[in-house]
Amino acid sequence: MRKCCVRRVVIAGGGFGGLYAAKALRHTPVEVTLVDRRNFHLFQPLLYQVATGSLSPGEIAAPLRSLLRDQKNTRVLLGEAVELDAAGRRLILADGAVPYDSLIVATGARNHYFGHDAWQADAPGLKSIEDATHIRSRLLYAFEAAEREPDPELRRAWLTFVIVGAGATGVELAGALAEIARDTLRGDFRSIHTDEARILLLDGADRVLPPFPEQLSSAAERSLVHLGVRPRTGVRVTEVDREGVTIQTMQGGERIATRTVVWAAGITVSEFTGIVAKATGAQQDRLGRILVNPDLTVPGHPEVFVIGDAANLEWKGKPLPGVAPVAMQQGRFAAAVIASRIKGRGGAAFRYLNKGNLAVIGRASGVADFGFLRVHGWPAWLLWLTVHLTYLAQFRNRVLVFIRWGFQYLTFDRGARIISMGANDPGDRAGGSG
Amino acid sequence: MRKCCVRRVVIAGGGFGGLYAAKALRHTPVEVTLVDRRNFHLFQPLLYQVATGSLSPGEIAAPLRSLLRDQKNTRVLLGEAVELDAAGRRLILADGAVPYDSLIVATGARNHYFGHDAWQADAPGLKSIEDATHIRSRLLYAFEAAEREPDPELRRAWLTFVIVGAGATGVELAGALAEIARDTLRGDFRSIHTDEARILLLDGADRVLPPFPEQLSSAAERSLVHLGVRPRTGVRVTEVDREGVTIQTMQGGERIATRTVVWAAGITVSEFTGIVAKATGAQQDRLGRILVNPDLTVPGHPEVFVIGDAANLEWKGKPLPGVAPVAMQQGRFAAAVIASRIKGRGGAAFRYLNKGNLAVIGRASGVADFGFLRVHGWPAWLLWLTVHLTYLAQFRNRVLVFIRWGFQYLTFDRGARIISMGANDPGDRAGGSG
Repeated sequence: MRKCCVRRVVIAGGGFGGLYAAKALRHTPVEVTLVDRRNFHLFQPLLYQVATGSLSPGEIAAPLRSLLRDQKNTRVLLGEAVELDAAGRRLILADGAVPYDSLIVATGARNHYFGHDAWQADAPGLKSIEDATHIRSRLLYAFEAAEREPDPELRRAWLTFVIVGAGATGVELAGALAEIARDTLRGDFRSIHTDEARILLLDGADRVLPPFPEQLSSAAERSLVHLGVRPRTGVRVTEVDREGVTIQTMQGGERIATRTVVWAAGITVSEFTGIVAKATGAQQDRLGRILVNPDLTVPGHPEVFVIGDAANLEWKGKPLPGVAPVAMQQGRFAAAVIASRIKGRGGAAFRYLNKGNLAVIGRASGVADFGFLRVHGWPAWLLWLTVHLTYLAQFRNRVLVFIRWGFQYLTFDRGARIISMGANDPGDRAGGSG
Repeated sequence: MRKCCVRRVVIAGGGFGGLYAAKALRHTPVEVTLVDRRNFHLFQPLLYQVATGSLSPGEIAAPLRSLLRDQKNTRVLLGEAVELDAAGRRLILADGAVPYDSLIVATGARNHYFGHDAWQADAPGLKSIEDATHIRSRLLYAFEAAEREPDPELRRAWLTFVIVGAGATGVELAGALAEIARDTLRGDFRSIHTDEARILLLDGADRVLPPFPEQLSSAAERSLVHLGVRPRTGVRVTEVDREGVTIQTMQGGERIATRTVVWAAGITVSEFTGIVAKATGAQQDRLGRILVNPDLTVPGHPEVFVIGDAANLEWKGKPLPGVAPVAMQQGRFAAAVIASRIKGRGGAAFRYLNKGNLAVIGRASGVADFGFLRVHGWPAWLLWLTVHLTYLAQFRNRVLVFIRWGFQYLTFDRGARIISMGANDPGDRAGGSG
C-alpha cells in the first residue's frame, strides 16, 4: 500500500491540534496516520460541564474514526506512543512501530501538582473524561455524606468545596457548582440545606482569571460572589490531604476542613513530550514544553512538528497559552507546511490570530476579552454559547447539547447526575468513572 | 421528628419495585425511607442501548432524590443494607441503622454464572451502568484490535462476538451489535470490513426468546439471521476463558475462538436477599428468591415484604418472571397493603396483570406477545418504542432519548461510542467504565 514517494505523515494525539492537522491534510497527497490512546476526540472546554452533571461524556466526545471516516488518505490507530526513533523516523507504539516522513507531536497536557503528586488522590484534576466523571461523583457524594452526617463540624466539612486555581476551568467549575448547590439540588435533601455549601476558589495570583484584563477579572469576581462562590486570591496551597487543605496567606497559615478538593491549578506536558525532547535533543521549558522553531518544528529536525499544549512558541513576548484555538491554528499550520514542502516551497513562520478569550460564570454570565472589545455579563455568556455551539457543530452533538442546555436553563435541573462506582472511592464508597 | 404512631416504612432498593412502592405511598400517612447503594434509579430495559453506544448512561438514569423530591413524607438515603435485625425491626446499613415498622425488600437481581464465577472476567454480564460501559468498551475495542492485528486467525477471533443467552437481553444486544458492525462502523476502518464480524447468540433452549410463543421465536430468529446474527440453540457453554468459549452441542464439543463474550444467561438475587431469608427464616428457591405469601410478605413476618426480582410468587403454575412490570405492580401492591392496614383493613392477594411481553431486534423489528395478540416486525418495534418512551417520560429524559433515537435511525450513527479506561481492561489497554 505504501509507495516510496508518498509522504507518510504520522500524528501523535487526536486532540484539537492533531485532529485539525489531520483534517487540513484532507486534500494533500500524503498518507496520514493519526495515533491516539483513546478512540475519541474530546471537546475539552466543556469537560467542566460533565464534572458538574450538565452533560454526559458522550455529548462532548466524538469517535476519531467517525470524524475522519470520509477522509480516504487517513487512518486512525488506537495505540500509545512510547518511544521515538528519531534517526530511523519511526514512532514506536506499545505494540508496534509506525514509520513516518513527517511527525506531528500533539499529545497535549496533563495535570501538574508542582512536585506534590501525592495530592492527586485528594485533589483530582480535570483533563480526561474519567477525571470528569470522578469529580462529578465526588461532588455529588459530598452532599449525600453531609445529609447522613450527624456531627455538625463534619457536615460542614462535607459541605465545603475547595477549587484550587481560578483560571477559566476553576471559575467555570466554581460557578457551576454554586448553581448545583443553590438550584439543582434545592429540595432534594431533608437534613441539609444545600445552599449552605461553601465554595472556595483559591488562587496564588491577586485576582481571579489572571490572563484577563483587570476590569474583567473584577466583573467575574462580582458574578462569582453573587452566585455564592468565595474567591480567595493571593493564597498558596501548602498541603492537601483527605481531611482538608492548608493554605498560606499574607496573614499566615490557615486550615480549611473539606472533603472535596478539585485541582485546576496547573498543567504540564504528556510523558511522550519528554521522550520527543530526549530523542531529538530539543529543549524543554519549566513546564516541559518543547521550544520550537517559528515554523513549529524541532531545531535540527525539520520533519518533527510539535504543536498545541506540548509546544512553547513565543508570541508577543510570552509563550502562547495552552488553549484550543492555539492548538487548532497550529495543527492547520503544520499541515500547510507539509503541503507546501511537497510543492517544493519553503515554510513561513506561524502567526497566531487571537480570536479572544472567554470564560463563563454560571447561568447567563461570563467575561469575554477580544482586545478591542471587552464585555461581561449576559452578552459574554451569549458569545460563549455561540462560539461553543459552533465548534461543537462539527461533532454532530450540537443539537443534543443545545436541547439539554435549554432544558437545564428552563428547569434548573441537570440530567447527568450519576455517582458511579470505581477504583477511587470518595468516602470509601462511590466514585470512579461512569 | 418521628412520632410513636406514625408508621415508618423502609424500602431497600430504588429499582422499579422500590421506586414504585415509594411513589405509591405518596399520600399515605407514613414516613418513607428509601435506601439504595446508588444515587439513581436505572431504567434497566434500555441498558443494552448503553452497552451498544446508542444512549449515554445519564439518559437512562435519574437521581432518586429528584424523582422523589416533591414527596414530602419520603427521604432518600445513600447506603448499603448489610444486615437485618428482624426481631428489633431495624435495617442495618454499613454505617448506621434505620428502624422500621414495615420493610419492603426490593434489592433486585445480579448476574448468575451457575457456579462458574471465574467466567465473569471474560464474560461480563449486563446489570449495572458500569457493566454497560464496560461491555461498550470491550465491543468497540475488539474492532480496534482487529484493525491492528496482522494474523488472520487472531483477527477473526477479535471479530467474533459471543452472546450467551437468547432471552430478551441477549436478543436485543445481538441485534444492536449486528447493526453496529453492518452500519455504524461501516467505513470507519481501513484494514478490516466490519461486516465480517460474526455474532453468535447461544442458548441452551431449542429456540431464541424461550418465554415467547414458538411462532414469535421463529419470527425473531428470522429477523436476527437477516441482520447477520447466527443464533445457535440447544448449546451448553462448558468453558469461558480469555481466548474463547467451549460449547457442548448434540454433536459433541466445540471450541469458538473469540475475545468478546457477553453473559446474558442468568440472574440470581442480591446478597441482601439471602440475609433477609436468614434473618426471617424464609425459604429461598434454587435462584435464591424468597418464597412469599400471596400478599408478598415473608411467612411469619407480616411487616416484611419482598418484591420484584427478589421474590418468588407462583402465578398460573410458575414463578412470576423478573421483569420491570412485575416489580412495579408488586411495589404498588405492597404500598396498598400498608395503606389499608393503617385503615385497619386486611390485605388481599397480589394479582398480576400481564400487559404483554416485548423484545426489539435492531432497527424497526421486534416481537410482541399480548396473549390475545401476537405481532412481529415493525408493528412490534413501534409498540416497543411507544411503551418505553411512555415509561421513560417519568424520568424527564424522554425528549432527549427520542431525539437521539431519531438521529440514529436516520443516520445509522451512534452518539456514545467511548472506550473508557478502567480497572478491567480488554486487551490490556482500554475498558472499565465511562
